[in-house]
Amino acid sequence: MTKRRLPLARAYTLLEPGPVVLLTTAGPPRPNVMTLSWHTMLEFEPPLIGCVVSNRNHTFGQLLALGECVLNIPTVELARQVVRVGNSSGRRVDKFRAAGLTPKPAEIVAAPIIEECWANLECRVADTRMVEAYGFFVLEALRAWVDPSVKEPRTLHHAGRGAFRVAGETIRLRSGKK
Amino acid sequence: MTKRRLPLARAYTLLEPGPVVLLTTAGPPRPNVMTLSWHTMLEFEPPLIGCVVSNRNHTFGQLLALGECVLNIPTVELARQVVRVGNSSGRRVDKFRAAGLTPKPAEIVAAPIIEECWANLECRVADTRMVEAYGFFVLEALRAWVDPSVKEPRTLHHAGRGAFRVAGETIRLRSGKK
Repeated sequence: MTKRRLPLARAYTLLEPGPVVLLTTAGPPRPNVMTLSWHTMLEFEPPLIGCVVSNRNHTFGQLLALGECVLNIPTVELARQVVRVGNSSGRRVDKFRAAGLTPKPAEIVAAPIIEECWANLECRVADTRMVEAYGFFVLEALRAWVDPSVKEPRTLHHAGRGAFRVAGETIRLRSGKK
Repeated sequence: MTKRRLPLARAYTLLEPGPVVLLTTAGPPRPNVMTLSWHTMLEFEPPLIGCVVSNRNHTFGQLLALGECVLNIPTVELARQVVRVGNSSGRRVDKFRAAGLTPKPAEIVAAPIIEECWANLECRVADTRMVEAYGFFVLEALRAWVDPSVKEPRTLHHAGRGAFRVAGETIRLRSGKK
């Protein structure tokens, strides 16, 4: 698929609805991917994102070491791949291959973009002050990519124990806010 | 509606999908309510929640002063009320009355529960270290309430500029994770 750059001022629209994301890192020793639902926007522009990565995850040390990642947003078509990623550890296997996901080079960061995902955010770690207390990393999005052919992305929203609510209809109401 | 207590170990299932929440405070000077989409779970049990409240919001000073709030989770039936809350300020009006929402006493905290909402989390402010940098409050949930008659809550997920994705079907996939 061909993705287009989304203005950074609109990056929040990708994450604010609360979808499951696939966080990719470049390594070391090899690229890795984990599932993540504990994230929030912190600022519109530059877009700041907070996310929780436990020190029990293989990704934890990679995020601290390289300070870069990509947040990839899957839609329901990738539900099985998402669960496969969530149920394995990058310590032992190449999770991209195991899950059937395609890593592609990003533009700015060393971490790969997942081709099959609807949207991707290239990020750098901007603040680690809350990592010790909560595993809470503050990321700054440097590039945002989106598949323009997807008008109403059917994102996954994890409700615990393998239950996912799928984003359905979009309603539009007059709002004075961003 | 009659709500039942949800075990605190399950509180994350209410917020992890990323719904819009209505945050209520007791005052001073009077109870207030604001809409909020920038939140994340930080810990399962005791349930810790991070949320962003800008110092431009009337709620900001109330959260710091009383250190208590309720996170109320509306479903699509309340979409118009949610937008009304989001487009007004508690500095000037009684937002419960203006939006047509019913404040009821909570069990532990002074902030009110919104009767019409599907679920409610009574919270205390647990950590303010990131408030200055990001308006990021860490809350601890002390009680969780849910309407047991709602099996698949059609929560609202804000995608910017008044567009809300509505949680649709629930899919269940085998997961080794919580």
